[in-house]
Amino acid sequence: VTATISSVDPRTGLAVGTVAAESGPADVERLVGAAASAAAGLAAMGADGRARMLEAMADALEAARERLVALADRETALGPVRLNGELSRTAFQLRFFAEVIRDGAYLEAIVDHAHDSPMGRIADVRRMVIPVGPIANYAASNFPFAFSTAGGDTAAALAAGCPVVVKLHPSHAALSAAVLAVLTEAARAAGAPDGTIGGVWGREGGSLLVQHPKIRAASFTGSTAGGRHLYNLAAARPDPIPFYGELGSLNPLCVTPAAAAERGAEIGEGWAASFTLGNGQFCTKPGLALVPAGEAGDAVRDAALAKIEAFAGGWLLNRSIHAAYDVGVARLGAVPGAVVHRGPMTEGSQGFAVTPVLVEVGTDALAEFASPLLDECFGPAAVLARYRDEPELLGALERMEGSLTASVHLAEGETELPAKVLAIAQGRAGRLLVNGYPTGVGVTWAMEHGGPWPATTGLGQTSVGATSIRRFLRPVAYQSTPEALLPPELRDDNPLGIPRRVDGRLELGRA
Amino acid sequence: VTATISSVDPRTGLAVGTVAAESGPADVERLVGAAASAAAGLAAMGADGRARMLEAMADALEAARERLVALADRETALGPVRLNGELSRTAFQLRFFAEVIRDGAYLEAIVDHAHDSPMGRIADVRRMVIPVGPIANYAASNFPFAFSTAGGDTAAALAAGCPVVVKLHPSHAALSAAVLAVLTEAARAAGAPDGTIGGVWGREGGSLLVQHPKIRAASFTGSTAGGRHLYNLAAARPDPIPFYGELGSLNPLCVTPAAAAERGAEIGEGWAASFTLGNGQFCTKPGLALVPAGEAGDAVRDAALAKIEAFAGGWLLNRSIHAAYDVGVARLGAVPGAVVHRGPMTEGSQGFAVTPVLVEVGTDALAEFASPLLDECFGPAAVLARYRDEPELLGALERMEGSLTASVHLAEGETELPAKVLAIAQGRAGRLLVNGYPTGVGVTWAMEHGGPWPATTGLGQTSVGATSIRRFLRPVAYQSTPEALLPPELRDDNPLGIPRRVDGRLELGRA
Repeated sequence: VTATISSVDPRTGLAVGTVAAESGPADVERLVGAAASAAAGLAAMGADGRARMLEAMADALEAARERLVALADRETALGPVRLNGELSRTAFQLRFFAEVIRDGAYLEAIVDHAHDSPMGRIADVRRMVIPVGPIANYAASNFPFAFSTAGGDTAAALAAGCPVVVKLHPSHAALSAAVLAVLTEAARAAGAPDGTIGGVWGREGGSLLVQHPKIRAASFTGSTAGGRHLYNLAAARPDPIPFYGELGSLNPLCVTPAAAAERGAEIGEGWAASFTLGNGQFCTKPGLALVPAGEAGDAVRDAALAKIEAFAGGWLLNRSIHAAYDVGVARLGAVPGAVVHRGPMTEGSQGFAVTPVLVEVGTDALAEFASPLLDECFGPAAVLARYRDEPELLGALERMEGSLTASVHLAEGETELPAKVLAIAQGRAGRLLVNGYPTGVGVTWAMEHGGPWPATTGLGQTSVGATSIRRFLRPVAYQSTPEALLPPELRDDNPLGIPRRVDGRLELGRA
Repeated sequence: VTATISSVDPRTGLAVGTVAAESGPADVERLVGAAASAAAGLAAMGADGRARMLEAMADALEAARERLVALADRETALGPVRLNGELSRTAFQLRFFAEVIRDGAYLEAIVDHAHDSPMGRIADVRRMVIPVGPIANYAASNFPFAFSTAGGDTAAALAAGCPVVVKLHPSHAALSAAVLAVLTEAARAAGAPDGTIGGVWGREGGSLLVQHPKIRAASFTGSTAGGRHLYNLAAARPDPIPFYGELGSLNPLCVTPAAAAERGAEIGEGWAASFTLGNGQFCTKPGLALVPAGEAGDAVRDAALAKIEAFAGGWLLNRSIHAAYDVGVARLGAVPGAVVHRGPMTEGSQGFAVTPVLVEVGTDALAEFASPLLDECFGPAAVLARYRDEPELLGALERMEGSLTASVHLAEGETELPAKVLAIAQGRAGRLLVNGYPTGVGVTWAMEHGGPWPATTGLGQTSVGATSIRRFLRPVAYQSTPEALLPPELRDDNPLGIPRRVDGRLELGRA
C-alpha cells in the first residue's frame, strides 16, 4: 500500500483531499535523473535566458493568483490579504533574481593576467563561479509561497543555473502541486530543459533526496529536529554536500530603560503585533523581550497584553504545530514564577484555532536564564523577562544561542547601552534591528537571513536577498586558457560588460 | 606518562629530538580560551591594524630565514632552494592578505536605503561581513611554511580578524615551534592581543580542538582519512561548524592527439617534472596522464621515462608517507596489464629515500577505469593511461572524482576536443589549466585551490588566493540603525573609502 499525501483545512481539522502518492526510490531516481540531465541546458541558457525564465515564472504565478490564493487559504488559513501579499513578494523575488544575474556581479569574476612576482612568473588565472548542479530544496510550511515551491531557495538556485527538486510541503499539498505545475509550464515555455524543476512527496522521498549522488547541495527551512536529521544525512554521505538549513530562532528584542520611559506602550504594542503576526508562525518572530523592571517596563507589558487581548483570531498551520504549541506554552508556564497571560479564543473556534500567549517571568529568571525560556516556541507565544540593571541585560544576551535577528529599542539619541547590546548581539544574530520588529524580511541586495546555529547550519549564508544565490555556485579558475576556450565573462574584451576585478583593480563593467 | 612530539630526519630516519608534550584537554581549554579572549581585540584593530600585524609577521619570518630554513630542511629534506622559495611565498602571502583587507572589497559591503517597493516600504538595511571567531587550523606536512603554522589558512583567518589555534604538524615539529614563536612575538609587537595565535600538539589535541564550543570554523590540509575524521567530528557537534578541508586530489592531465603529435616529448618531460617536483608531495601533483595510443603518445611516455631516469634523488617527509607510498605503488602495479617503470634509487639511500615511478596501463584499462587508478598516490608516482579515441578519453574523464585541478594539452589553435575536455573537467575540478602543469599555485586575487569532494569538503571554497578569506567571515545586516551605531564601513559617508553596492549600484570607493 502506498501512503498518500493530503492536507487538512486548519479552520476545520478536516482533510482537503488526497493530492499525491508518497515518492519512493524510483520516483526520486527519475526526478533527480531529470534534474541532472537538465543541468547543462539550464546553464547554457545564460544569465539572460534564465532571467527571462524567472520573469515568466513570476508572470505565471500572478496570472494564476486567484486560484492559488484560494488553494493556499484553504490549506493554511492565513487569509487572502496576507496570502496575496506573499504571492506578490514571491513574484517580486523571482524578478529580483533576474535583475541580480543580469547585473553579473554575482559571478565574482576576477582576471589576473600573467605577471612577475617575488616568486617568479605567475601564470594568467581567471576565476568566476558556475552552478553546482541539482539542488534539493525542502519547502517550509509557514510561507506557502515565499519559502515553499516557488520561494527564495528555488528562485536563487534557478537563477544560479541549478535544476531544483523540491521536497514539497504536505501541509499545503494542493497548493504545492499547483505551483509546481505553474513553474514547470513557465519553464518549458521559456525554453528551459525538462527537469529544470521537479518535486518529491513524503518523508522517505525527502531523506532519499539529500542522499542522492547527483544532488550537489540542499536548502531547508523548517524545524531544528527536521533540519538536523537531514543535515546529518548530508554530512554522512560518502561525498558530503553543503546543507543550507534554516532551523530555529528566538529573535530576542531588548528595550533600554530610556526607550521604555520614552515610548514603552508603543514598543509593547509593536512587539505583540510582531509576535502574533501570521499567528506567530514567522521564523523571525521576536519570541523574547528583555524589558526593564519598574514602571517604564510595566508600560511595555501592559500595552503588549492589551494587544493580545485584541487578537482577531487565527489558526495554526497543521496538527503537529498545534500540538507542539500547547506543549511549548505548558513548558514556559512551568518555569518557576512564570505568569501566563492568554489572549481570547478564536470565535467559533475549531480545527487548529490558537490563542496568543505572553509568558511573564520574574526578575529572578535571568539569573538562570536557560531552556525553555531560550527555546523557540512556534506560534503566537512570547516571553517577557525583566532585567534590573545593565549587567543583567547584557548577561542574559550573552546566554543566547544563535538567532536570525536581534532587535534593540533605544531612546532618541541614545548610544551607550545600545552599542553594548549590538556588540553582543552581533555575535549571535545575522540581522540587527534598531527600533524595529524583525517580522517582514525585505528582498533586497543587503538582506541577511541567517545566523549562528541553530538559526542556520552554516555561518556565511543567507536564504533571502541577492547574496543567497552564492549557496548554489562554486568557483572555477582557468589558467593560461586561450580566449576561444574561455567563458565570455572572463575574456579580455568582457563582452557581457559584467563587473570584474582585473589585475587587482575593480572595474564596474557596463552598468 | 605524557606522550611527546618529536620529528625525524627523513635523510637518516633518526629522531631529531623531543619538541613538546602532546596537548591534553586542559591545554586545549587554555589555548582556545585565550583565542576567544583575543577575538574582540583582534577585530578592533581594524583592517589597517591587522594588515600591519601581517606585514610584521612576514618581516619576522624573513628575518629568521636562515634559522627556519635549516630547521625545515632537517625535518623535511626538501632542500634549501625549495624551502627558501616557500618561505618567500609564505611571507608574500601574509603581505598579500594585508593588501586584500586594506582594499576593503572583502567586506562585501552593501547599503540599501529605505525605499518603496511593490510590497510597501522596505527598511534601511546595510550588510557587511565580520570575523566568525576562533579558528582551528590543521597544518599540512608537505608545505612546512606555506600550508603550515604561518601558511595560507593562518594568514587568511588573521586577516579576517579571527584568532587562530594551529594543530601543529609533528612531522616538522621543531620548525612549527619556531615559527609559532616568531608569529607570536610579531603579533605582540604589532599590538595584537595575547591569544591571537596559539598551537596544540598531537592527535587528541587535534580532535578536542575541532569539538571545542568556542571554535567557530576549522581549516585542514592533509589526507582524506584524517580530514574525514575531523570533518565528522565537526558535523557531529551539538552546533555543527564549517570544516574547510582539502583532502585528496588526482589532478588528471589530458593530452590531445594533436598536442602529442606537435610536442609529445616536451609534454612528457614537463609532466614528469611536475609529478616528481617536491618528491611528488604536492596536493596538485598530476597523478594521471591520459595520452593517445600510438606513436605520438609513445613520445610522451618515452620523454617522461627519460625524465624520471634522471631523478636527482629525494626523501619522503615521514615514515607513514614512506610506507603508504610503497603500498600505493604496489596496488597500481597489481592492475592487470600494468607496467611499472622505476627511476633510480637515491644515492647513499637511507631514511625515507624514494624512487619515482611511472605506471603504464594498457589501452583496456580505460574500459573499467576505477580504483586504484583513480586514487591519489602521495609521492612521485603517476599513472599513464592510453586512450584510442575521443569517446574513450571523455568517458575516462567522466569517471573522475573531484580534483583540485585538471589540465589539457592542446595543439596550436586547437579548440574542438579541448572544449569538450574542459566542459567535463569543469564539473570535476576547481582549476583548469591549458598547456600547463598544476604544481605551483600562485597567490593571486583569482586563484582557486579547491574542488568537488574529495578535493575539498565544500563546493564554494578555496584555500589559496584572495577569496580564501571568505571562509572566516560571516555576514551581518544592520536595519534602521543610526549612523552613530553603524560600523564605519556602512556609514553613508564611507569614511574608509571601501568598494560597496549602494541602492543596487556598485561603487568603487577610494581605490
